Order: sequence, then C-alpha cells, then structure tokens
Amino acid sequence: MIFTSDNWAGAHPDIARALSDHSGGFAAAYGASDLDRAVERRFSELFETEVAVFFVGTGTAANSLALASAAKPGGVAFAHHQAHIIADECGAPEFFSGGGRLAAVDGGHGKIDPENLEMTIARYPAEFVHAGQPVAVSITQATESGTVYSTDEIRRISAIAEKHHLPLHMDGARFANALVALDVSPAEMTIASGIDMLSFGGTKNGCWCAEALIVFDPGKAEQLPFLRKRGAHLFSKSRFIAAQFAAYLHDDLWLRLAGHANRMADQMRQAITLASDARLAWPSQTNEVFAILPQDTAAGLRHHGAQFYDWPVPKDCGAIAPQEVLVRLVTSLATTPQEIDSFASHLR
Amino acid sequence: MIFTSDNWAGAHPDIARALSDHSGGFAAAYGASDLDRAVERRFSELFETEVAVFFVGTGTAANSLALASAAKPGGVAFAHHQAHIIADECGAPEFFSGGGRLAAVDGGHGKIDPENLEMTIARYPAEFVHAGQPVAVSITQATESGTVYSTDEIRRISAIAEKHHLPLHMDGARFANALVALDVSPAEMTIASGIDMLSFGGTKNGCWCAEALIVFDPGKAEQLPFLRKRGAHLFSKSRFIAAQFAAYLHDDLWLRLAGHANRMADQMRQAITLASDARLAWPSQTNEVFAILPQDTAAGLRHHGAQFYDWPVPKDCGAIAPQEVLVRLVTSLATTPQEIDSFASHLR
Amino acid sequence: MIFTSDNWAGAHPDIARALSDHSGGFAAAYGASDLDRAVERRFSELFETEVAVFFVGTGTAANSLALASAAKPGGVAFAHHQAHIIADECGAPEFFSGGGRLAAVDGGHGKIDPENLEMTIARYPAEFVHAGQPVAVSITQATESGTVYSTDEIRRISAIAEKHHLPLHMDGARFANALVALDVSPAEMTIASGIDMLSFGGTKNGCWCAEALIVFDPGKAEQLPFLRKRGAHLFSKSRFIAAQFAAYLHDDLWLRLAGHANRMADQMRQAITLASDARLAWPSQTNEVFAILPQDTAAGLRHHGAQFYDWPVPKDCGAIAPQEVLVRLVTSLATTPQEIDSFASHLR
Amino acid sequence: MIFTSDNWAGAHPDIARALSDHSGGFAAAYGASDLDRAVERRFSELFETEVAVFFVGTGTAANSLALASAAKPGGVAFAHHQAHIIADECGAPEFFSGGGRLAAVDGGHGKIDPENLEMTIARYPAEFVHAGQPVAVSITQATESGTVYSTDEIRRISAIAEKHHLPLHMDGARFANALVALDVSPAEMTIASGIDMLSFGGTKNGCWCAEALIVFDPGKAEQLPFLRKRGAHLFSKSRFIAAQFAAYLHDDLWLRLAGHANRMADQMRQAITLASDARLAWPSQTNEVFAILPQDTAAGLRHHGAQFYDWPVPKDCGAIAPQEVLVRLVTSLATTPQEIDSFASHLR
Repeated sequence: MIFTSDNWAGAHPDIARALSDHSGGFAAAYGASDLDRAVERRFSELFETEVAVFFVGTGTAANSLALASAAKPGGVAFAHHQAHIIADECGAPEFFSGGGRLAAVDGGHGKIDPENLEMTIARYPAEFVHAGQPVAVSITQATESGTVYSTDEIRRISAIAEKHHLPLHMDGARFANALVALDVSPAEMTIASGIDMLSFGGTKNGCWCAEALIVFDPGKAEQLPFLRKRGAHLFSKSRFIAAQFAAYLHDDLWLRLAGHANRMADQMRQAITLASDARLAWPSQTNEVFAILPQDTAAGLRHHGAQFYDWPVPKDCGAIAPQEVLVRLVTSLATTPQEIDSFASHLR
Repeated sequence: MIFTSDNWAGAHPDIARALSDHSGGFAAAYGASDLDRAVERRFSELFETEVAVFFVGTGTAANSLALASAAKPGGVAFAHHQAHIIADECGAPEFFSGGGRLAAVDGGHGKIDPENLEMTIARYPAEFVHAGQPVAVSITQATESGTVYSTDEIRRISAIAEKHHLPLHMDGARFANALVALDVSPAEMTIASGIDMLSFGGTKNGCWCAEALIVFDPGKAEQLPFLRKRGAHLFSKSRFIAAQFAAYLHDDLWLRLAGHANRMADQMRQAITLASDARLAWPSQTNEVFAILPQDTAAGLRHHGAQFYDWPVPKDCGAIAPQEVLVRLVTSLATTPQEIDSFASHLR
Repeated sequence: MIFTSDNWAGAHPDIARALSDHSGGFAAAYGASDLDRAVERRFSELFETEVAVFFVGTGTAANSLALASAAKPGGVAFAHHQAHIIADECGAPEFFSGGGRLAAVDGGHGKIDPENLEMTIARYPAEFVHAGQPVAVSITQATESGTVYSTDEIRRISAIAEKHHLPLHMDGARFANALVALDVSPAEMTIASGIDMLSFGGTKNGCWCAEALIVFDPGKAEQLPFLRKRGAHLFSKSRFIAAQFAAYLHDDLWLRLAGHANRMADQMRQAITLASDARLAWPSQTNEVFAILPQDTAAGLRHHGAQFYDWPVPKDCGAIAPQEVLVRLVTSLATTPQEIDSFASHLR
Repeated sequence: MIFTSDNWAGAHPDIARALSDHSGGFAAAYGASDLDRAVERRFSELFETEVAVFFVGTGTAANSLALASAAKPGGVAFAHHQAHIIADECGAPEFFSGGGRLAAVDGGHGKIDPENLEMTIARYPAEFVHAGQPVAVSITQATESGTVYSTDEIRRISAIAEKHHLPLHMDGARFANALVALDVSPAEMTIASGIDMLSFGGTKNGCWCAEALIVFDPGKAEQLPFLRKRGAHLFSKSRFIAAQFAAYLHDDLWLRLAGHANRMADQMRQAITLASDARLAWPSQTNEVFAILPQDTAAGLRHHGAQFYDWPVPKDCGAIAPQEVLVRLVTSLATTPQEIDSFASHLR
C-alpha cells in the first residue's frame, strides 16, 4: 500500500526489456543514433507536427531548460504557487535562467486563475526597467492538486500569454494522466491549445528516467542544444532514454499505464466517498487523491502498512477539524486493486 | 570495427539485468532507497574511508558539480588544456561555478606539467583582486591522450594544490581503465595521493548512465545536495543508477571490463607498431590509441567498415607528413579480438 | 514642488565642493588611497566597532552584494514584499546571488511581520532539498512606506534570523532619515539590534553617488572584495566616493540633511491632516508621505506645478473611494518650506 | 612623478565644475533627465549616426554589459590575452555573460593577430555542441601595450568577425588617446571600421567616473536597459555622469587632455631613447610607455620619488638581461613637463 508518490514505483517490464534489447551493439553517442532519431520522429507523429525534441533525465531539467530558453535579464516567469518549478526544484529554474524570477499566481486547486494571472503580469509593466520583464507563463498538467485544465481553460491562459507575447510552457510530468482524464489527443491538449513548450514526462508513469522537452516551433529551439549541454544534461548514451520512450509510446503503453493509475485513483476516490470517517478534500481527476481523515484513521492506516504523506493545507481546501489531517494518496502503474481494497477496508 | 568512442557501446548484460531485477516494487525516491544507501556504503568500502557519494547522470554533471562546490567569485580552476572540462563541456563547469574560469595548463600527452601548473597559478596572486582567485585543480585520469598519471605524478600535483590551499579534483570518466593500467587500489590512486573529489565514471565502461561524484571529506560536501538538485541532477528513481553501480562493482565486473578494453587497446597498439604504414603517435596505456596513418590507409580502413575519428594534432605529437593523419582509436567492453584482427589485417 | 523622489535632487554644495577639492593631485586607485582609508575608519568610529566597508555606486549594488555574500545554492532570502530588492531592482539580487530567490513576507506598512516571517521561513525546512534553503533576511530602514522599525522591532526580527542562523541585512537607502526619526545612534539601530550587514545610502540624502556596504563582522567579508570587483563595482577613482562620504559625515551634515527632509515631511503631513479634501493613508515617520486625495485635487496640484507619483494601493491601506487616488510625496534636502506651503495652499 | 596609472589622477577642473554647476535643482532620475538626453544626442553627433548610449560607472561594467548583450549558452568571446577583460576584471565578463568563456588570442604588442584569431575561432566549430559557440570578438584600443590598431588593422579583424557573424566590441578605456594618436574621427575608428559596440572611457582621461557603452545599431541594444539595471549599474542621479561627459566632450576637452597625455609620453619615450642606461621595450604610441632599465636605475628613480610599476615581460618583448627590469610608465592629463624632465634627469 504505497501511495507516497508515483516515482516510488520502478519501471514497467516493457521498459526494462527495451533497455536490455538495446544494450548490445554500438550506436552514435550524444543523441545521434538511429533510435534517437526514430523516437524524435515518433514525437512529431504524436503531436501531428514537426517538433524539436530534447531528451533529458529529470523533469526539473526539462522545466528549467524550457524556462532558460525564454530567459531575458530581469525576466519573470509566471506559474501557479503550487507549481513544481516554484515549490520543489530548489531554484533550478532560476539558476538555469541566469537569475530569473518565478512569480506565483493564485487559483483554485492547482490551476492558474486567468484574472489573477493578468493582475500578476501587470505588476511588471513593459516600460518599467526596475521591475524586470515578463518572459513566460508555465502551467502544470495534470496539476499538483491532481486536477486537470480543460482545453478551454488552457486556451484562456494561452490567450493571455499571447497577448503579452509570452511563450506558454506546460509541465507535463503527469502528461499521460491528464491526457487520459481529458480524453483528447496530445495535439489538442498542447499545440492546438496554445502551448509552445512541453516537459513530457515518462518517469512517473513507468519509465526509469525518461523526460523530453518538446518545442512546438523548432525554429525557437536554436539555443536548446547548447543550453542542454551547458546544463550537463546531454547523455552520451542518449539512446537509453530513446529506448525507454520507444517502449513507452509503443502500442499505447503509456496511455494504458496512465489509464490504470487513474482508475486506481477513481476506486480510491470512491472508497473515500463511501467511508464514514474520511472525505475528499477536493475533486481530483487523475492519479493524485487528496483526502481529509481523522488523525487516528491516518495512524491506523499506516499501522496496517499504508504509506502516504500528510499534505500542507491549501487555502482553497474545505474546513479541516483540529483532529483531522489532509493526506495525499498517489496511485501509479504499480498500484493494484488489492491495495486499494485493502486501504478501503481499513477506512470505515 | 567501431573505434569512435567507448560511449558508442551499450550496456553490459549484467547492468541491463540489474535494471530488470530492480524494476518491480516500490522504493523511496530521490536517493533515499535501501539500494542507494547500500551502493553508497559500497563506495566507502572501495575507497577504504567514509566518503560522500552523489549519483548523477553525466560525467559533465559530476565534473561541474565538483568545481561548483569549490567555486568563489572570480574563481579560477586549473586543468590540462585537453581536459574534458575545458574542451568538451560547452561551458558547463563555468556555468555551474557561477562564471568561474578554467585556466589551461600545458604538459605532455594530456598530463599537467607541475612547473607549468605553478607558473599558471602564479598569474593569479592571492592579494590581487583584479585577476580573480585560484579555487581548484583538476586532473583527468586516464587522460584524454590515453595516458595515466602515476601515483607519484598525482602526488606531485597534489603537493602544489595543497600548497595553494586548492582542492584537487580527478575527472575519472575512465577511472577503471587507469586503475587497471596502474594496478593500484582505488584508495591509492585517489585519497592516498591527495585527491579531494572524484568524478567516478561508469558510463564509458559498461553502464547505461551511471556517474558518481565522490567527496573524500564528507564534511566538505555540505552544499552538494543543493548544488545537485539546483542543477536538476537529482533523479527521482535514483535507484536506477544505484542498480547499475551495484552490478558494476559486483564481483569486480568494472575491473574486468576495463581490463578487457585495455587489453584490446594493447593488441591494437601492437598491430600498429608492427604495421609498416602506421605508427603510434605516442605511447598510451589505456583504451585510447593514437596512431599516425597515411590518409589512404585511413580511407581504406573506413572503406572496410572501421569507424574512428581524425584527431587534432597536439603540439607534443611527433612529426606528421602532409599526406598523413592522426587518428584516435578507442576500445571498450564491447570490442572483440576479431575486430582488432580485422583492423590489423587492413593495415600493412 | 518636486515630490517625486529624493533622488531627483542633485548634490549638496558641500559634497560638490569636496569633489572639487580632491580633484587635483594623484592618489592610489581602487580604494587604496589615504582618503578611502580615512573614510573607512570614520565608518568604524560611527558604528563604534571595526567594520568592513565597501564603497559602491548604487544602493542596488550594495544590496545585491550583501545578499550575494550570503548566497548558497537554492538559497532563499526573506524580505517584505514592498522591499526595493523585491520590487525595484530588476532581478539584481537574484542575479548576484547566482539565481537565489527572494521570498516575500507580509506585514503592515512596509515592515515585516515577525509571525509571517516565521511562517514563510518554515516553508523551506532545512532537511528538504527540494525547497531550497534559507540564507538571509533583509529589512528596509526606513521602509518603502516611510515608516521606521523601532530598535525593539528590529530585535524581534533579528532574534528570528539568529534562531535560523540567517544573517540579517538592512537596506539603509534612507538610513539617515530613519536614524533621525528614531533618535538613536547608528550602532543602536544596527549592530546592537542584531544587524549583520548594512547598505548605507548617501545618494538619496545629498550625495551624487555614494553608497557603502558595511559588514559588522569583517571576518565574514572575505569574499566581498572579489564579489564587488566581479560585479564591476570597484571604482578606479574610488576616492570620488570617499570624498563625498567625507563631506557627508563631516560635522553631522548627513543628519542635518535628513532632519531637514523629515521636517519638511512633517509639515506636509500636518498640511494634509488639516486639509478637508485629503488625508494621510497611514502615519509615516520619515521623508515619504502617503496621502489619499480626490483625483481632481491631485490633478489640480499637478496643474499648479506639483510633481508626485500615484502609488499602488497596498492591502493595508485604508479605504479609498473610486474617485480618490493614493499618492506618494517625497521630501529631500532640496525641499523648501515654501514648496510645502505652496502645496498646502492648493489643498483645501 | 606619478607614472603608476592614469587612474591615479583626479578629475579635470572643468569636470569638477560641471558637477558643481549641476548639483542644484531637480531632475528626473535613472537617466531620464534633459541633461542625460542631451549628452546622449551629443554622442550620436560624435559618431555621426544614431547610437544607443548607456552610462555606467566603470569600464569593467561597460565591457561586461557589452559581452553580456552578445552572450549565448556555452558562448566564447575572443580577445587578446593581455586584454583587460581577460587579465584584470576578476571574471566580471564571464559572470555577466552567465558563465561565458574568454578565449585568449595571441598577437604582438597587445594586438590580436588576425591569423591567430581565425585559428582560435576554428576551435569552436558551429556544429559541435561540446565546444560551445563563438559569440563575440573584443579588441582594446589603445591596447594594454600602449599601441594602437590602425583603421586597416581594425577592418581586418572586423572582416573576420563578420565572416563568423560575431559582433565586434572595442574596449575604449583609452579611446581618446588612441583617437589622437591615429588622428582620425571617432566614426572612422569605430562604426566605419566595423565596430558594433564601444566601451567609451572618460575616467582615465580626466573624469571622476564616466563610462558609456555605445551600441552603433540601437536595434541590437534592446536588452541592455535590463542588463544594466540587473547589473546594478543604473545610477539614480545618472546626470552626474552626464554632467561629466558634457564637460568632457565640450570644446574638445577630451581630445586636448588625451593629446597632452600622449605628448608627455612622447617626451618620455624620447628621454628613454636618449638615455644610455634605458631603452624602449617596444614602440608605443599613446600614454603608456614600456621601458627596460637596469634594476639599479629603477631603484634610483624610485628613490627620487618616481612611482611606476614593474611589468610582467611578454614573450614578444626584446631580450632582458638578468639585472634588468621591464617597467610601465603611464602619463595622464595631470602629468607635467617638469615631471618628465625630472624623470629624464635621473636617467643617464
């Protein structure tokens, strides 16, 4: 009963097998192999347009390089205050951007509120050198609250970004979970909705270590090969990432795995809704479930082997009694229905 | 007949198997798993002292983080002009050091000349704020010229570093090849010879992607967890690196693989020495061989399927006639005696 | 009737004269002149302890170098959300800190609220590498709202900083105005209250261009000569700053000028209090006055030659009617009682 | 007899007077004053084209911002190994460029050798991400060896820069001295010879602190207001620099002062040529004279009050006997014929 994070899971057997299959033989290093090229083409098919693809090893690298490619002196990028780039990356985006700033935007359940975005951008007027200058907007899909922007919601954000001539980045560490939840195509959720750059994550959904920065207008990716290499994120045996992605994208494995994780979360949500001593903190749609439990119940669940994190209470969470606690429960490709049942049976 | 680089090889079957074996199950993320801890302990055993270990994905990351941990404003690090950090990392060490400088030191066949090191450090006198300040010395073992510093030679460098209160870093992208060539212990070649930080490379010698920054005095590694995370080099499923190292270090696999690569290079050196129309450019001791060939011969070899790079002629190389070319030939775990024989048969 | 900013004034005649007096003759460059040394000693007398002094040309430089000297990877410095370092320096502190973050702290009228400071620091727990690490606290004295921390209030902040082992920086762009308002000694308002570093500003109070970073424990200033030079802030003819400070500190000129500016503001406050169609937005104590006026009145004042800025309404400001506007009125050494009278006469 | 450096002189009386004249009254801050604008226009007249002008306080700032405006990830700028940016700025250009590299180019007497420049650029081939990418060339006029590039020589360098699409920067810390020596117009020595950016120095030639970065194509200066502010180099009372430049450029004061300094150096060169126990190390043309003296003679001169620096012997210097020393003698606006005579009388 491990619900701490989807990155506690290992790799899917198909991913491991792909690494074994490609381990023999020689191939050009630093991303020049046939396999690298083939997987890059696969991404272009997936997004229905010629994209520039940069394999990296961590989501933080993909995010940081995306923002670095948009950086200007005194630059300010806008993101939800819960965004991974703001809350969990130890200043990597700021470092890669040469000292750029991340301005936190408010909004319910992990999603940027468009009006608040406008207001926050307005604090950095173009003609006022003292404040710095806006350089990018970043949204997280699925969000850190387990919710998902609809394509309409993305378009509302991208209209604002476009108005201010700001590229729009999507942190897709849980891209597949969001895609399955929305039931749209990769292109619909990104380029067709105004996304300019995407951190496409594979690690949390069954890869060992496979992330890609996707740039939808390759003409704007000119400096990224240098940014990646300068960031020490160009792998010599790059095909070990390509091989993971090849298996990941083959025969819809990635969508099946995300679908499974989401379904496990649905069952978890249902169990919590039915339980008398627990309730959902807010409705999430992907593989992250947020629940309010009596502390005793949480302790009991842990006593029976469940692992999960207490979670800081956001201001848009419903009321929590003193003896209650907010917890986050994350499912993954490795979660089994039995684990959910077992968890549910310890709730009442 | 792939002699382009040892990073064109894939991964050893034992490494691939380790990844498969560990792909199931859950484990704490971000380096906190039991396997991560066990491999860290293994490194302490290997170096016969308690060391701090930081897994990263590229040698450039290990090198850059090492130098970043020694950085000061206006800092200058000293390395051989052929060093990877100077010639091949697109400014990563400078970037991670916040704009530090790499000062090139001369010396024959890839090794820093101690007198030249003293002379170069002297250009940055401590009391002169305008010039900046020395912060570190870095040597490459094995060197980019395929040679190896003896432990005496390392100690001569470390005495100078110590005199100037500079930490001494070793870029060990081909650490195993050097170790096998010298036939000393890991501790003898490092901490006992005055090395403070080591980039321990596994990738070029049979791993997919496994590098570690080893700090011999853990008390000096306080900022490295933050430097690594800020550099986007902390892997969530860090155990995928740990698993590779576990297999790599198990039962001396790493030494066997390096021994094999070195032996293949020995056979290559022998073949070149015996050939009438080729000669060694200088004597190397590890898995990199540098040869001077007639351009026709080089073309002929390539025609028969050999792949290798022409190499820029260093000033300490022997005379090269106009119709000749200097080439680099790199062997690896994946090189077979048949390939060497085949190569030799196309030489005269 | 120029109330836009105190940096619209020129230089006091004594300052200009000092520059003329010292313009002949030769002196050692880069801060090594007798005059530089003498002024440095003067600062030590002023603060009743041996201090390290670094002349720079802008307050932003002093602030940025102070924070740079405290920087660590993933570092987070805490300041009031109105602080100049957050609102007005185009990312300079972040840049000089190698990508550090400035975390905004709330509090009324420009002053950090101690509880909010504790809460904000708590978001960056020491053991949690993902969030980064706290590195410094910065307060502004006088604040951007024209208010002044009492020495008790400073001590409350410094106790928190000390508890978390964070150096405490004071942005003293309007140090003299605050000092005169509090009527304490320079030492009492700084080192005795727990301040570790001070940006001592002369420019806004009668100098052309004279700022100094004061470090109260010179042992902690070791890297500052390099940080300053690397920041391009070491002046060759440094004595032109020393000469300004010599005149500024001579015979209490600085206190007399700040006293004058504060008195002019007092008269302005009184005039506003007495006026029927204007009111103070909040009580300030130094040379910045914040008033709420009908837009018509503001327009009328401007029509009669008054210059001043509309000001963004902070959340702790009293209610403002739709047809009203918040304005900032800044007095300086160059403000005359006649200007205040004239301004008052155009109020009703 | 102060020949240490031209930055040991103070300011010319006209400069000091200008500061006094402008010290009263109010003016818009941060470069928006009428005087700032007027001096900017004066620069456009001077260079016979609309230029963008950025006042800063140090030559290091002008140089570093110029290079920062050309920076790219993994960027490499090329300059003579004696260049101030390489030898004397404590890593400021690297810092402002986000970790860029300065590649040293050889050439006699402080001037870049065109062939060596080509060779050095060739080490960074455009398609090779590992090496980084060329971003700029910088020349120093007058050079650190007191020599001057002819306009033909500048054009030879600019042709190479242009071929590689690299902007060409001129460090004009001693621009006036070079201009007077060449007897050409400011436009001829810069824009007409292919210069893209100029660090225009006033400080070494009679100002207290007045430097300007001139960009000849204002369309390429878009980021410089932010770069300057982020570097903490935007002065609030910017007109104190404008006032210095106004006086400096008025009625050819700058050319008269540089002409004087150069003439004093001519007399010094003549005296050394005539002396039996001294000789010129190489022929210089501006206000820096390099002489080889017996150590006894140098000691004797110092005994009689002469101040000057021993100088590191460059490889292109003539032979120096063991008991001899190379010294640098710098004249300035403040040097008198009597000082030269007195110096000459102590030579034999």
